[in-house]
Amino acid sequence: MSLAMTENEITLALIQSLKEGKKMLFQDIMEELQPYDMAQQYLHIPSKHRNKFLLYCTIEQITEMMQELDTDEQLNVLQKLGIEKSTKVLDLMENDDLASLIADLDAEEIEELLSEMNQEEVDIVQSLMNYEPETAGRIMTNRYVWIPKHYTIREAVDKLKHFAELAEYLNYLYVIDEQKKLVGVVSYKDLLLGDLYDKVEDVMYTRVVKADVHTDQEEVAKLISRYDFVSIPVIEADNKLVGVITVDDIIDIVIQEANEDIEKLSASGKAIDFNTKSMVAAYRRLPWLILLLFIGILSGSIISGFEDTLQTVVALAFFMPMIAGMTGNTGTQSLAVVVRGLVSHDLNSKQVVKLVFRELWVGIIIGVICGVLIFFIAYVWRDSVTLGLVVGSSLFLTLIIGTLAGTIIPLILYRLKIDPAVASGPLITTINDILSLLIYFGIATMFISRLM
Amino acid sequence: MSLAMTENEITLALIQSLKEGKKMLFQDIMEELQPYDMAQQYLHIPSKHRNKFLLYCTIEQITEMMQELDTDEQLNVLQKLGIEKSTKVLDLMENDDLASLIADLDAEEIEELLSEMNQEEVDIVQSLMNYEPETAGRIMTNRYVWIPKHYTIREAVDKLKHFAELAEYLNYLYVIDEQKKLVGVVSYKDLLLGDLYDKVEDVMYTRVVKADVHTDQEEVAKLISRYDFVSIPVIEADNKLVGVITVDDIIDIVIQEANEDIEKLSASGKAIDFNTKSMVAAYRRLPWLILLLFIGILSGSIISGFEDTLQTVVALAFFMPMIAGMTGNTGTQSLAVVVRGLVSHDLNSKQVVKLVFRELWVGIIIGVICGVLIFFIAYVWRDSVTLGLVVGSSLFLTLIIGTLAGTIIPLILYRLKIDPAVASGPLITTINDILSLLIYFGIATMFISRLM
Repeated sequence: MSLAMTENEITLALIQSLKEGKKMLFQDIMEELQPYDMAQQYLHIPSKHRNKFLLYCTIEQITEMMQELDTDEQLNVLQKLGIEKSTKVLDLMENDDLASLIADLDAEEIEELLSEMNQEEVDIVQSLMNYEPETAGRIMTNRYVWIPKHYTIREAVDKLKHFAELAEYLNYLYVIDEQKKLVGVVSYKDLLLGDLYDKVEDVMYTRVVKADVHTDQEEVAKLISRYDFVSIPVIEADNKLVGVITVDDIIDIVIQEANEDIEKLSASGKAIDFNTKSMVAAYRRLPWLILLLFIGILSGSIISGFEDTLQTVVALAFFMPMIAGMTGNTGTQSLAVVVRGLVSHDLNSKQVVKLVFRELWVGIIIGVICGVLIFFIAYVWRDSVTLGLVVGSSLFLTLIIGTLAGTIIPLILYRLKIDPAVASGPLITTINDILSLLIYFGIATMFISRLM
Repeated sequence: MSLAMTENEITLALIQSLKEGKKMLFQDIMEELQPYDMAQQYLHIPSKHRNKFLLYCTIEQITEMMQELDTDEQLNVLQKLGIEKSTKVLDLMENDDLASLIADLDAEEIEELLSEMNQEEVDIVQSLMNYEPETAGRIMTNRYVWIPKHYTIREAVDKLKHFAELAEYLNYLYVIDEQKKLVGVVSYKDLLLGDLYDKVEDVMYTRVVKADVHTDQEEVAKLISRYDFVSIPVIEADNKLVGVITVDDIIDIVIQEANEDIEKLSASGKAIDFNTKSMVAAYRRLPWLILLLFIGILSGSIISGFEDTLQTVVALAFFMPMIAGMTGNTGTQSLAVVVRGLVSHDLNSKQVVKLVFRELWVGIIIGVICGVLIFFIAYVWRDSVTLGLVVGSSLFLTLIIGTLAGTIIPLILYRLKIDPAVASGPLITTINDILSLLIYFGIATMFISRLM
């Protein structure tokens, strides 16, 4: 295959080879493709050619390609393959990918899918499914190389060589004792530079950074990004080595967790992407919107409580959207700072106090500046010092309160081990809306005689 | 050092060894620590011990530790080290880390810092600084192993062994021809499984996934996460291999880009974290807030344009926050879906059209449901069918328009090669605020005689 071929040229060449029944040519092209590209090609060719495409692929190629497809397409491919071939593919698939495939299916479908599989593989996948979703146990793979601590470097290298096909990343070997307990780690670099007859236990690092099976995947991502590892071992409570998590899965998790934070912060609904159907997207977005609708009604009923004030000074309505909007926004700003800060920092009480005081100061500074600014604008616009003072002092107070609410609420949720990002739109917006309207109309009502 | 020691116990043991002048004991502990942990220990010990801490560390340990500190601390360490030792550390530092350190300094400080450094290293770092920030050229490292294509596998393994200390990740070797042009890649797996006397060019992959020096770092992250690589080669226009980007940097970039998206979407100001001073944080947050303040004034002046309508039917004010809030929120929802979708998808015109129609449908569905709901609420609350119809039909229209604005504006920015996330608060909020108030009061004014 020519190096210079574009993606479209490859698609055409593949279709050509399928049409003319040239399996050798097809294989020549496929051999140079990465799994992601194979999957893209499979999705790009017209569906009438897909059966033949799969027929011409080796089981290994189908397995690699599978891992780059989404669940629906994976099931589609398995169905096209028939029971015998699909069982082979399932046997070859990495157990964490298999676990994530069957996580979306119901019991009957799982039964059907796994019925013909190698029992050992089925047991491994089922044991993986026992861990909570989004924990280390759920995303770990069992394809890694471990060595007993009494091995020499030479023996370790031989074992590595033997299992090279199986291990995803070869940067580290994990060292275990007789009870399969994790006792150390050697890097491939150590093996290269060490003496062939040195014992592994003499060159290994014993202070291994590791994750427990129940550790949250976000914590695992934090460890990997801190330590710049390409894999991290996973242990059970008794320090028994049971799996490894690799950096490629971690990148997907970091992206997924960031998306979840954004979904929650923007109250945009769970897991909507470019391929989500409009009914599904609307269904996922509606709960937040309906909640916000009722919050809006609540704000409305607060305003209606001040109907007399508003009736007397209609100009008060002009500043309502500004005050509510500003308070909501400063709360969201603080919330975003806290939520994203927690992605890379752990917090102790001292830092929490420091952070709250920092935000209090931020609130005061922006409160003073924006309050003074709006005082002059309102004064000039409506030619009323009192109105300026009412609007300015309200904004000053609501900005401080909004900032603190956006800081303290996610911190409390974090302490209660609730994901702080759920504080998002609804909670912060409700509190800030209600408080800002109460403060604004409260102050205005106090000065009502001078506003008239 | 005992394996079971906690972080605090290690801190105490280190302080003890520093106080008693036991360098050997200090080194025993340090040798088992990862760079991140060394940095944490350095930051945890009281500052009066830090000079001695640095004195007891090897140059290599200081270099490793440096890379885990932030810029201020790095400069602090360099100052404590004195010119001779700090030059050694700078020589040893990876050039991408060095480039990111000096990116924050002014010309004079850079001059002073680099004055004593190895000229070759200085040249490399300065050439790195010529690339735009956030491009592949800026984040690549020159610590990687390349081999000429005429090498045998045995020669490749020997070279790998020789440079093992230098190469960060050993999973792939990049293969070049006589002009240093990138012609292929071999994995360490291929080397292990191949015959020692095979030529590298016979076993290498020729279809190498690579990044150009000018490629945006976000694109590089996309490539690495798609292909599950631990490193990716970087070339100049003539296909000359000039560097490598490793997965550990990519994880940091994915986190950084997600934070930037959240900063922009929540208009929360650039780069505020837990350690930012309150004056700085307030300064960074203020531009957005002041912009929003003027947007609020703009909304206010639109409302004041309908002063007569509002004076006649004060109840219209009750629904104002709800309509503006809902329209803003549906816009933000769509914006978040588009911005995060673009992180993992590329879009062609066909998909853009599909996405816009999807969102149009979503807007219609949520518009109908929320519109009907608010019709009944307004009707029951204020006992007026007309008010119900005015509020309901306004919400129906503004939800459709808000959804489309949140979709189309970021797509246009994306097509114009402007980061769609900047559409964030300001742009979408302004447009949605103004449109929603105009529609709401426009419809209300049309029915004003029946509303009285």
